[in-house]
Amino acid sequence: MNIVVAQSGGPTCAINASLVGVFKQALQTPSIDAVFGSINGIEGIINDDLVDLKRVIRTNGDMELLRQTPSTVLGSCRYKLPDINENGATELYEKIMDCLNKHRIEAFFYIGGNDSMDTVEKLSRYGNEIGSSIRFVGIPKTIDNDLPVTDHTPGFGSAAKYVCTTVQEIIRDSSVYSIDSVTIIEIMGRHAGWLAASSCALRANGEIAPHLIYLPESDFSVERFLEDVRCERAKHKAVIIAVSEGIDPGDINFRSGAEDTFGHKYLSGIGKTLEGIVRENIGCKVRSIELNVMQRCSSHICSKTDIDEAERIGSEAVKAALDGRSGVTLVFRRISDKPYVVTIECCDTSLLANKEKFFPRSWICDSGNQVTDKAIDYFLPLIQGEVNIAMKNGMPLHFMMGAQVK
Amino acid sequence: MNIVVAQSGGPTCAINASLVGVFKQALQTPSIDAVFGSINGIEGIINDDLVDLKRVIRTNGDMELLRQTPSTVLGSCRYKLPDINENGATELYEKIMDCLNKHRIEAFFYIGGNDSMDTVEKLSRYGNEIGSSIRFVGIPKTIDNDLPVTDHTPGFGSAAKYVCTTVQEIIRDSSVYSIDSVTIIEIMGRHAGWLAASSCALRANGEIAPHLIYLPESDFSVERFLEDVRCERAKHKAVIIAVSEGIDPGDINFRSGAEDTFGHKYLSGIGKTLEGIVRENIGCKVRSIELNVMQRCSSHICSKTDIDEAERIGSEAVKAALDGRSGVTLVFRRISDKPYVVTIECCDTSLLANKEKFFPRSWICDSGNQVTDKAIDYFLPLIQGEVNIAMKNGMPLHFMMGAQVK
Repeated sequence: MNIVVAQSGGPTCAINASLVGVFKQALQTPSIDAVFGSINGIEGIINDDLVDLKRVIRTNGDMELLRQTPSTVLGSCRYKLPDINENGATELYEKIMDCLNKHRIEAFFYIGGNDSMDTVEKLSRYGNEIGSSIRFVGIPKTIDNDLPVTDHTPGFGSAAKYVCTTVQEIIRDSSVYSIDSVTIIEIMGRHAGWLAASSCALRANGEIAPHLIYLPESDFSVERFLEDVRCERAKHKAVIIAVSEGIDPGDINFRSGAEDTFGHKYLSGIGKTLEGIVRENIGCKVRSIELNVMQRCSSHICSKTDIDEAERIGSEAVKAALDGRSGVTLVFRRISDKPYVVTIECCDTSLLANKEKFFPRSWICDSGNQVTDKAIDYFLPLIQGEVNIAMKNGMPLHFMMGAQVK
Repeated sequence: MNIVVAQSGGPTCAINASLVGVFKQALQTPSIDAVFGSINGIEGIINDDLVDLKRVIRTNGDMELLRQTPSTVLGSCRYKLPDINENGATELYEKIMDCLNKHRIEAFFYIGGNDSMDTVEKLSRYGNEIGSSIRFVGIPKTIDNDLPVTDHTPGFGSAAKYVCTTVQEIIRDSSVYSIDSVTIIEIMGRHAGWLAASSCALRANGEIAPHLIYLPESDFSVERFLEDVRCERAKHKAVIIAVSEGIDPGDINFRSGAEDTFGHKYLSGIGKTLEGIVRENIGCKVRSIELNVMQRCSSHICSKTDIDEAERIGSEAVKAALDGRSGVTLVFRRISDKPYVVTIECCDTSLLANKEKFFPRSWICDSGNQVTDKAIDYFLPLIQGEVNIAMKNGMPLHFMMGAQVK
């Protein structure tokens, strides 16, 4: 049998590790012949744009390098598969099945977030309807950590490790001058505040900052925010604030209004907005810093736990397909925090598709501007360990797909 | 004899390593008794706010941790010492000498950039005039690499290593989708483009991007910029542009107009400005990323060469003071690129004070949008090697000044 793997959604540090997990497990499985990679997610299958991964990943060295290379080696997409009942959808689904059948593909692995799980779910349902034996299996991935069922998502631990490391450096940077200041750090997270919340892990190393943490899950009001800032300024010379990009400041207009193909609003500028509010109302030195795409692609400071788990969950996905499972997604179940133990299980993809998991209300302090120590216990295991990054000329070495295959 | 060391200007990854260099050399010098640290640069001497560094840095472990902790452990300032002839200046200079004499300080070490060298120069001139034997010695520091005479400045190598590492990760991040895009990366550098130019070192690792590099030293015009972008878009799906914050886009108004105490304009937003220009005139997907303060404080990816050299130049400063030198600054002279050999020498501080060194015109391509391979030879040695960063709970451990001393 042949298999195909595709990557979808926003880049992470761990999505290539999951691909390596699929690839390695396939190599160890005598019944699997070709391992195809689909270029730009599902688009590669629609357009019959596949590569033979054995020609791309040739050595153990290639595998190790790819494991620690950020972003998606096969490219990605934000393609929304229409519902099968929509006009013209049948042709598209047939095109996909034609491509899979043409290459004798019996299992499709999709590494992605809740939108990608929607694709897995739709394809497995369609496959069932037409009596196809092709298995569709989801492998979770997102720095947002917003997938339900699973304890956490591959990619999140590395993003959180980058956030903690960088916020700590910004704390050092912010406290050098004798004049008081406020620093606002804008962290990714449209609806779920996991990543901004993860900065609380710095408390385990004796940091007091970030003094304030605002998440989309906390009720935000500009009045209370200004009160919080004034209160922290009375206690600290350099006030550090971590804020999710997706907090709702009420009627203040800061959204661009544009929407992507999944109907998400492009958010930008909450950091700049709050900076302006502090300057206007408090009048102290204030700056805002956007961690931007660096928080999803900074492999040089990735979490070893994250990368290892991402590979493992990729391997387990292959085993699930070989067991005949389809329309399933692999998930982590945490057995304990200390020692950190997780198992990998299968769950129905429909439980994850298009669904979001929010930061627990019970881990947000009553004040709405901080998170509890329970969150630290949750985050810490996910950021443990460093990968031995291959360096060349003083810079990390990245795996690059050779010209021979495209 | 007693000595005092102070840190000034913007934070870097290497300024604490130079302080460790001064401290270590002092410990090894029997004639030196107390080593004071001045809180917030020269302000600490004006306000008699000194700490006994032997009470702060107690062990070899402390020294190693401080060496790899970003920003200035003693705090910093942007204090401009008035000219001695200015009204009321004499009282200030007397206050400084009073503090130094009170603590029997015979040598003052100032770690900083060209503004700080102005302070060293003024104080040593004043000391000469009044017949003081106190020695004033400058230790260079700036991520901008814009000090004359010295081959490069401590702090720059680590900043350049961060820039290269991060730009490479952004390159990976930018190329995942099938649609064309332009990514503009704004890098620090008001008048001198060294840091933005350093991204060219990625070519040593086979990267083609950044496809365009714009420096304050190159003649920038919006028309040529748009032409450049159109030309690169014809060749590459994801165009990557590195741009110094200080390039002059001509009559487009993007400056805030505010000035700091040294008369520098606060610049912001060239990335956002160019993003808007591309969107309006070309209409493709475009985003801008500001590397912000992370480029000066990301010790977790600092250059071992930089940190080691910063420590060495601190030690050499103490030796120079012991030799009776005053009004001097320690500088690097490069003997060769391959193998990389530098010596440390003394030069008159007046040669550096308030002066800037620009990126050589001869290393800018005729097109004005790239730099030559000669620049790669210059940059590569400065970013070599990684420091074995102490980690705790999955995050870098930072040295923090104990509560007992403040």
